[in-house]
Amino acid sequence: MKTGTVLHILGGLLLFLSAALLIPTPFSYYYQDGQIASFLWSALITALAGFLLRSLFVPEGDLGFRDGFAIVTLGWLGAAFFGALPFHFSGEFSGFLDCFFESMSGFTTTGSSVLEKVEVLAPSTHFWRTFIQWLGGMGIIVLSLAILPVLGIGGMQLFQAEVPGPTKDRLSPRIRDTARILWAVYLLLTLFETGLLMAGGLSAFDALCHSFATLATGGFSLYTPSIGKFNSLWVECVVAFFMFAAGVNFTLHYYVMQGRGSAYWKSDEFRFYLFLTLLATALLTVFNFAGKAYGSLGESLRYSLFQVCSIMTTTGFATADFDQWPYVSRFLLVCLMFFGGCAGSTAGGIKHVRVLLLWRHFRLQVFQLLHPKAVKAVKLDGTKVAPAVMQAVLGFFFLYIGVFASASMAVCAQGVDLITAVSAVATTLNNIGPGLGGVGPMANFGNLPDFSKLVLSVCMLVGRLELFTVMVLLFPSFWKETRKPLWFWQRKKLK
Amino acid sequence: MKTGTVLHILGGLLLFLSAALLIPTPFSYYYQDGQIASFLWSALITALAGFLLRSLFVPEGDLGFRDGFAIVTLGWLGAAFFGALPFHFSGEFSGFLDCFFESMSGFTTTGSSVLEKVEVLAPSTHFWRTFIQWLGGMGIIVLSLAILPVLGIGGMQLFQAEVPGPTKDRLSPRIRDTARILWAVYLLLTLFETGLLMAGGLSAFDALCHSFATLATGGFSLYTPSIGKFNSLWVECVVAFFMFAAGVNFTLHYYVMQGRGSAYWKSDEFRFYLFLTLLATALLTVFNFAGKAYGSLGESLRYSLFQVCSIMTTTGFATADFDQWPYVSRFLLVCLMFFGGCAGSTAGGIKHVRVLLLWRHFRLQVFQLLHPKAVKAVKLDGTKVAPAVMQAVLGFFFLYIGVFASASMAVCAQGVDLITAVSAVATTLNNIGPGLGGVGPMANFGNLPDFSKLVLSVCMLVGRLELFTVMVLLFPSFWKETRKPLWFWQRKKLK
Repeated sequence: MKTGTVLHILGGLLLFLSAALLIPTPFSYYYQDGQIASFLWSALITALAGFLLRSLFVPEGDLGFRDGFAIVTLGWLGAAFFGALPFHFSGEFSGFLDCFFESMSGFTTTGSSVLEKVEVLAPSTHFWRTFIQWLGGMGIIVLSLAILPVLGIGGMQLFQAEVPGPTKDRLSPRIRDTARILWAVYLLLTLFETGLLMAGGLSAFDALCHSFATLATGGFSLYTPSIGKFNSLWVECVVAFFMFAAGVNFTLHYYVMQGRGSAYWKSDEFRFYLFLTLLATALLTVFNFAGKAYGSLGESLRYSLFQVCSIMTTTGFATADFDQWPYVSRFLLVCLMFFGGCAGSTAGGIKHVRVLLLWRHFRLQVFQLLHPKAVKAVKLDGTKVAPAVMQAVLGFFFLYIGVFASASMAVCAQGVDLITAVSAVATTLNNIGPGLGGVGPMANFGNLPDFSKLVLSVCMLVGRLELFTVMVLLFPSFWKETRKPLWFWQRKKLK
Repeated sequence: MKTGTVLHILGGLLLFLSAALLIPTPFSYYYQDGQIASFLWSALITALAGFLLRSLFVPEGDLGFRDGFAIVTLGWLGAAFFGALPFHFSGEFSGFLDCFFESMSGFTTTGSSVLEKVEVLAPSTHFWRTFIQWLGGMGIIVLSLAILPVLGIGGMQLFQAEVPGPTKDRLSPRIRDTARILWAVYLLLTLFETGLLMAGGLSAFDALCHSFATLATGGFSLYTPSIGKFNSLWVECVVAFFMFAAGVNFTLHYYVMQGRGSAYWKSDEFRFYLFLTLLATALLTVFNFAGKAYGSLGESLRYSLFQVCSIMTTTGFATADFDQWPYVSRFLLVCLMFFGGCAGSTAGGIKHVRVLLLWRHFRLQVFQLLHPKAVKAVKLDGTKVAPAVMQAVLGFFFLYIGVFASASMAVCAQGVDLITAVSAVATTLNNIGPGLGGVGPMANFGNLPDFSKLVLSVCMLVGRLELFTVMVLLFPSFWKETRKPLWFWQRKKLK
């Protein structure tokens, strides 16, 4: 790892974040909510830190693999840390750890909150809270479609050839081009949803903030009862539709916008995602109706469909207190948490493409038991999947379950009950938001012990960065080839 | 599949079972418990069924792969069905489904019971209940070391070369030789434990029955409070030691008895198993002490060590109501349920060798992220693991989690609460015995809905037969090459 280069780039990220911290100030001025100073101070501190890193350390040469892992992990960590400052200065949170949790929940597009009543926040703080989800979503699109495929994390090399952008060889131009195209799609969808929500009677501010949280599959709302607050079928349909869209590989949206309308249908992953969404909705509707949670099938369908879209895409909005639903519905929701959306979307979780490959691997295993001499490989979109990719996917699944179990145990160790602990880890590791029991959709994470909040913050980060990105940093061999940073007074050494 | 051959062999199995059904009669006579008729009737019915199958159908040619899957699955199912007859005739069970559940729990060496108070049973019924566990254990040793490796289930081909016995080419002589050697080891250990338990003050009958249940890692006890009834440190140590031994690959015991004392230590799996047992005991001791479940570290160690040995080897004996332990202890126990013992033991679960391979696969994945050009393979006992074996193990893990989640949902759908449902599936799928909540160590499975009992019976069978053995039967392609059975009057066709 080239420590100097990594720190230099992290400095750049902080400068970008400090600029972003200025964006809520006009809102604060407009609503006269007294938060201007909070944001200015936060921006100043962040800028200072960024400036220091940027000027102290000199970048050297091209980025390597190790640098990639370090920048991504430390970048998200740094953003969560400095992004927590406005929460801290707002005075509405009961300690910096809570602010950090909320900020990490934002940047990882999770949506878990420590607040008992979110309505206490000032409008500009609300804006920041949903805006960082949107920023996190921007980061994730680029990460999952431009960076992880190159780094070869968890089988993401699958998407290496598919992604738009002319250059595929070097990291930097590839990231730039991919980012430009996909961010345009992301912005377009956000504006589109904002318009439709305004048409449904929401104020421009409410519409924009909720669109941020939808497209990022984040799930922060301006109201404690989440989308249930509006009690409007139109709003629910619009949000459900855009949640579903945010869970689709953004490359597909881009292709379709270019006129290749069949792109969705040609994707195995999209069809699987659509199929599971419909299947889960049907099951949940029946479970809730049979369990007498709702009086009519229609009503059951309305709340079940919304919740499936919300959980499956790892958004975490709610229109009902699903912690009151029958046991089987709750169990189904926890299972759905792990599916996540499609790869290359803003959704968290294992991702449908991986589940699909695992399923096909299982079918192949059965086939080979019956035909021991046959040679066959798993296919995706009609192409054979390379053994290395398949092994990465299989390894990813094992690690996912391993991290899930270990983190659950760590939370239990603080005396948190089993349902709360397990669902809290499931919901944070998969970047969703609400869980069951003590962290149900009408409860919050504020009452958990401090150590649990820290563990869950790590879960959000680890889940968001597809596990391996963070995990490699824990291995001593990662740090073996670490170069000492080049300080600015050593600049001449470079030549 | 050669239907005639399969049915003919199943008939033979039933004849063997009917002979076994006569074994409890002397006990019944000795204790004058009035169950002689139950066993005679059961033996008669079973013999009749076996005789019919055997004489109606003509075997043809060598056994193929498909025949192997069918015989193993149907054989266990048949044994559970006919083995339930004495329970039915005893009149102490509230319906045949309960008898079937208890019998399946016996033959799969699970140890889950539908009885609220086991003391109501007659001595000979007690004998049968633990004896079928011992028979199931005999079956499992042969299955896991002689049959599954040939069939290539879940990576068990690993053990193909290791197993004692001169012939490795054809199925029948291989099974016979392996069986003879390993059953001798099994019998020896059983007698040894019986002696030690008698030295601890148990009656010969108690000692024998509990030794049956220990060596089979079954866990049925003659008393509702299980081993806790005896309240004797000596008994607990003896049982814990033999549970641990029953969780070791029986081939290793054989090698050591032959004088190759280093065999244990040379096995990667054994060392991993020992390491995890010690680690889990240390953790559980601390958790229970810190959670104030016990007043002293020594006391905490005593109960924790026993429970770790019991759960890790999938036996299911209890000396404490662990459902009252701190949350983190309960969660750890549920996690341990999945590890199971070593492959080639009588224990259920995923097996340590698979977990070890999965862990090494994960380490290799991390290594390859850092060294993308390096070519390396996972090793076991110093030898490279073939890619096909690794893929089978990885696929096995995915299927395991998939079956676990699906079955839990099916049980929840009956209105069973989450903790009870999830732990009931974990404990039956891994062939352990007690779970948490409504199926905790001091509770029983009798109050569950009928459909749940059926689902859990299937879990026991599926888990015991390493999933794939049963799963392949569900695929249409399994039945494609099914030959019509050859009836006895068509015998001349054979020549």
